[in-house]
Amino acid sequence: MTEETVETAAPEEEGYGLDNRRVSAILLAVAAGDTVRLGELLEPLHPADIADLLEQVDSGRRREILLLGKSFFDGEVLSELDESLREEVITFLPPEVLAEAVRELESDDVVDLLEDLEAPQQEAILDALEDTDRVAVEQALTYPDYSAGRLMQREVVRAPEHWTVGETIDHLRAHKKTLPDQFYHVIVVDPGIRPVGYVTLGKLLSSKRSVKLTRLFEDSFRTIPVTQPESEVAYAFNQYHLISAPVVDDGGRLVGVITIDDAMNVLDEEHEEDILRLAGVGEGSLNDRVVETTRQRFPWLFVNLLTAIVASLVIAQFEEAIAQVVALAVLMPIIASMGGNAGTQSLTVAVRALATKDLTGSNVWRVVRREVAVGLVNGAVFAVVMGLVGLVWFGSATLGWVIAAAMIINLGVAALAGILIPVTLDRFGIDPALASGTFVTTVTDVVGFFAFLGLASAVLL
Amino acid sequence: MTEETVETAAPEEEGYGLDNRRVSAILLAVAAGDTVRLGELLEPLHPADIADLLEQVDSGRRREILLLGKSFFDGEVLSELDESLREEVITFLPPEVLAEAVRELESDDVVDLLEDLEAPQQEAILDALEDTDRVAVEQALTYPDYSAGRLMQREVVRAPEHWTVGETIDHLRAHKKTLPDQFYHVIVVDPGIRPVGYVTLGKLLSSKRSVKLTRLFEDSFRTIPVTQPESEVAYAFNQYHLISAPVVDDGGRLVGVITIDDAMNVLDEEHEEDILRLAGVGEGSLNDRVVETTRQRFPWLFVNLLTAIVASLVIAQFEEAIAQVVALAVLMPIIASMGGNAGTQSLTVAVRALATKDLTGSNVWRVVRREVAVGLVNGAVFAVVMGLVGLVWFGSATLGWVIAAAMIINLGVAALAGILIPVTLDRFGIDPALASGTFVTTVTDVVGFFAFLGLASAVLL
Repeated sequence: MTEETVETAAPEEEGYGLDNRRVSAILLAVAAGDTVRLGELLEPLHPADIADLLEQVDSGRRREILLLGKSFFDGEVLSELDESLREEVITFLPPEVLAEAVRELESDDVVDLLEDLEAPQQEAILDALEDTDRVAVEQALTYPDYSAGRLMQREVVRAPEHWTVGETIDHLRAHKKTLPDQFYHVIVVDPGIRPVGYVTLGKLLSSKRSVKLTRLFEDSFRTIPVTQPESEVAYAFNQYHLISAPVVDDGGRLVGVITIDDAMNVLDEEHEEDILRLAGVGEGSLNDRVVETTRQRFPWLFVNLLTAIVASLVIAQFEEAIAQVVALAVLMPIIASMGGNAGTQSLTVAVRALATKDLTGSNVWRVVRREVAVGLVNGAVFAVVMGLVGLVWFGSATLGWVIAAAMIINLGVAALAGILIPVTLDRFGIDPALASGTFVTTVTDVVGFFAFLGLASAVLL
Repeated sequence: MTEETVETAAPEEEGYGLDNRRVSAILLAVAAGDTVRLGELLEPLHPADIADLLEQVDSGRRREILLLGKSFFDGEVLSELDESLREEVITFLPPEVLAEAVRELESDDVVDLLEDLEAPQQEAILDALEDTDRVAVEQALTYPDYSAGRLMQREVVRAPEHWTVGETIDHLRAHKKTLPDQFYHVIVVDPGIRPVGYVTLGKLLSSKRSVKLTRLFEDSFRTIPVTQPESEVAYAFNQYHLISAPVVDDGGRLVGVITIDDAMNVLDEEHEEDILRLAGVGEGSLNDRVVETTRQRFPWLFVNLLTAIVASLVIAQFEEAIAQVVALAVLMPIIASMGGNAGTQSLTVAVRALATKDLTGSNVWRVVRREVAVGLVNGAVFAVVMGLVGLVWFGSATLGWVIAAAMIINLGVAALAGILIPVTLDRFGIDPALASGTFVTTVTDVVGFFAFLGLASAVLL
């Protein structure tokens, strides 16, 4: 995959709108107050690229760009913008620019925007909306956070069961103005507005006008409950290759539709969250202030400190042995470090497999056996290596045997803990990505130090 | 987000086809040789769920399920199956079942299938294809691995520039049989078959028959070079909210189309790769054999061993100090562990920001300053905590000052290394997810031990 990484290093050649040269040119134009030049530079950019630009510069520059280039700032830029910056940008903007920006958005994007804002700014945006949109948005906000109801757009294209292709096309032509920007299916509903199937636009276009919609139903049809968590929604889109899916309330009535781009977004955020949680980094972004970031990172460092102190207490039990054989102090971090790494490997595989539902009750014991076997085999190999290192470096065969035995024990335990801890957390409804790492390294530190120093005390003293 | 994790723990209530109860029932039916019951259980499952089932059971059961339930095994199941299992499953299958399974697939799925197979099995599948399909697949295989050319489907829906909506619809109706299963745009091409724009099916359906296609072009239109790496393709789909995009050769001629579901797949794989690489786990899956997995995990453990030995060499310089003040051996792992954790936090944020292009040449120094500030502030807080612990535990104010100073130094250095190492690797075209972790923890171990033991030797002895 070397090509890929090389390409990532030089994205400007791949048609990505916002390269470093353009950013520099934009900053120059802003510094010179040159609105015309700024316009030329911003014009070809996609709203997502303009949002990236605003994210990459500091707060002062951001304000200058917004003031000089406000005609390029629209609702799409706002909804592409990182959540941590939205409040700041909204306070910079003149109310009329904000109002116009928000009115262009679809209801689901407005909801997404409002979720993370403080009350006064929520009010400012709601006030800018037309009455019908305002009602729609306020209703969406009554659904739980991170549920399908928040994710869906309320603009749907539906047809009764008895319609033909021709009737449907005529209806679409007659209601052209009110159709959503993007839609991929016509949802067929019964008289109670309950979805019973859907038809792709491709089938509609290629079938004769006289064909009944019910004859064109797709196998992939499935409805999504409005209260379903967005992570489950994203999972279903990914697993079943959905493009769009109708959302239904408790009575099975159609209330909205979720499209694949929303699901892709959620998937992306879930992955981001997983990867950050595994590293003990709270939510947050590069744009948060130092104080906020410090506060986000602090809790996990603090937990780590406590567990490190626990490991130190284990070492403290063997102070006498260490005082006599200082080589133990030199070698013990190697055992702990190897255990920590091997445990993290097993743990990461387990966390991913849980997220993708590849690790379930029906195969957990097979996976545990496999991981422990891998741990013991690698442990045996590294036992030989470290046994020899111990022998050569410190000239003691006994020390070599001790370190070799401790290595096997710790890598076996690391594999066991690496699987069982995330699986157990998952059973109790705790996100394994969030908490497993600390538990696993605590286990490997404690077991590693105890096995090595304990064996050494027994054998060497 | 507690609801989410709870839901993940009990997916059977959320309509996921394959719950533990069904898996048990299927295994019972297989053990009893009850083909009818097995059929009832498999029938409602999506091909993706059947693939999951095959992934969750061991090799012997897999064979039994395939033999008894072969009528439920089709090309889609095969293409949903984890790559590590495809070869095994293909060897189990009778040739005629395999041939039928493969013939149902679209060309991009066949390509995806072939990529990871050994030559004899590739031949078996190519032989099963019809001649035109075989040529298409063989041609796709001439594009580089992981390029747009491998990802695209060759079945495209195109129209000349001068066509109207009516002409296009008539054409689609006339060629109903040869249309791809799923398509979202009609691609408009010039006489040299170069794409000049595209029209959504929604616009086609809702516009009058007399309207020219060129008047319905979408702003989102952009072409993808056939040799573009798939990671860049996925990035573009995600950044610009594309649903489908035409793929062009060097001469700008239309050669295929990529749709969002393919891009979503790539995004998913890229994330998986990032998360596994960060943990030092090579590619691989839960289904690989113990030997393979051991071999995949070994290299990073070995690198870790070397770096751990480097850290031990640092400790060895201070053997004398440790022999005199054994408390140093007890406390030193805390400094190293805190540095390692803080470094991993910065590193993970940096790796993610590089992947999403939020960290670029234009803001790298601002991010470095911010991370170092965060590191020093957290370092100062933990310095106070550990200073007091040192004082209370070992009754030595001097030891307290030493550990406090070492903590600030190591957390500052951890932040610096956590950003600069991945950024530097990225500049040199090396995937920062792959190698950063080892470098960063080496730095924090070495600096941590050296700062703590060095200061202690200077002050205490």
